[in-house]
Amino acid sequence: MRPSQSLFLPFFLLFLTPTSTSTSTSATADSLLRIVPEETAAVSDGDGDDVSCDSWRLSVETNNAGSWKTIPEKCLGYVEAYINGERYTSDSDVIRTDALAFARSVEVAGDGKDVWIFDVDETLLSNVPYYADNKYGLEVFNETSFNEWVNVARAPALSASFKLCEELIDLGFHLVLLTGRTEPQRNVTEANLSFAGYHSWTKLILREASDIGKPAVVYKAEKRAMLEAQGYRIHGNSGDQWSDLLGLPMAIRSFKLPNPMYFVG
Amino acid sequence: MRPSQSLFLPFFLLFLTPTSTSTSTSATADSLLRIVPEETAAVSDGDGDDVSCDSWRLSVETNNAGSWKTIPEKCLGYVEAYINGERYTSDSDVIRTDALAFARSVEVAGDGKDVWIFDVDETLLSNVPYYADNKYGLEVFNETSFNEWVNVARAPALSASFKLCEELIDLGFHLVLLTGRTEPQRNVTEANLSFAGYHSWTKLILREASDIGKPAVVYKAEKRAMLEAQGYRIHGNSGDQWSDLLGLPMAIRSFKLPNPMYFVG
Repeated sequence: MRPSQSLFLPFFLLFLTPTSTSTSTSATADSLLRIVPEETAAVSDGDGDDVSCDSWRLSVETNNAGSWKTIPEKCLGYVEAYINGERYTSDSDVIRTDALAFARSVEVAGDGKDVWIFDVDETLLSNVPYYADNKYGLEVFNETSFNEWVNVARAPALSASFKLCEELIDLGFHLVLLTGRTEPQRNVTEANLSFAGYHSWTKLILREASDIGKPAVVYKAEKRAMLEAQGYRIHGNSGDQWSDLLGLPMAIRSFKLPNPMYFVG
Repeated sequence: MRPSQSLFLPFFLLFLTPTSTSTSTSATADSLLRIVPEETAAVSDGDGDDVSCDSWRLSVETNNAGSWKTIPEKCLGYVEAYINGERYTSDSDVIRTDALAFARSVEVAGDGKDVWIFDVDETLLSNVPYYADNKYGLEVFNETSFNEWVNVARAPALSASFKLCEELIDLGFHLVLLTGRTEPQRNVTEANLSFAGYHSWTKLILREASDIGKPAVVYKAEKRAMLEAQGYRIHGNSGDQWSDLLGLPMAIRSFKLPNPMYFVG
């Protein structure tokens, strides 16, 4: 649509409409049951050429695709080229630039309560070496082999996120790491973050026993609520999944990092 | 992040966490004032090559870019090529495929209350002929000349949206058109929609006098709340701006159409 005015609202305001105290009447158990997740995200009738796979990737990055379990087979070469080529790096770096521009506009109080949340996998740490051995998301997720990879604790940093962390620390932000990994993975996760060069995070929040089985979007929103209850001001939130970012309360600004390899709801 | 489970949640559930009854404590007037919108969305240090402009476009489509007023000068040729080439068509068609897959999973009651919301500009109707004469968003929005174009009522349909409307009608959905255009533009808007081939919409909602000046995201959420109060079940929502889609109540599934030419908050 075309504006009658072009005021930008930070993300949190999007949920503070006059109706925000009422839950959506669309939210019925029945409607939930009627949703049939697609096993593979839709691709147009193309033959796996760059344009059709580019369109598929856009549908994934905008959350249009909904739930999907594996990348389209015809896009394997495309995803491999994207991840290992200059586009993934460029896309990540533009997001860093967007985030930094916002961060510089924030007046940090200096009381340690101004925080920026980062997801871990495909946000701070790159599991591309693992996914390269597993067809970049064409194979259905194997929790056992992925956890073996996690235990090795040698995932490299995502360069743009690493730089952003340094810049945010310089600006006075405190970093809160909020991951879907579990408490038993704390030691290897800390070891991997240190291996990748990360330091000075304020908290690393992992799933406790009581969080197991919760959808990521619920678990993460609950932890953000907990942080706010502890007096933290969540200015920014960086994650590669919409489930890292959506759900109330949200950060003032949310930043969706690219990930065409897998979906987490 | 990596899932402990991969359940896809429809959009509305993202806001029904145990904390959804409390408003974000990030929402202070002070934090609002501290946000300094960028005049032009960030682009990496590239020279306007396809990769850097592609990254800029992704940042726009994912809402990472925040508020922006004009496209980056270096990306004029890129945006022109995108809009007039096969990518815009392909991107739009994949979204249609995503939307249709969801629509087919909905059990339509047949009582006329199962609706799909469509925005108008850059969703049902294409203003590309206007923007082609105005450097594809490189020039700052001129409301006077845009309204002159609206009054001509000759904007063509967006092909993918036109097809989706037909398919949704066949499935038994009712269409609600929700636009930032104003009531005095009702006649020309209806004339343009008919010119473009659209028919059988249930409602066309435009800004009334009391809506003027409201941010789009607030105005549209209020109208969705009104629809729900009238007993409509909002299954899908298609729009080219995040302000068409976000804010409570939301549709069960929201579909973000591409628009690299302008931003509406």
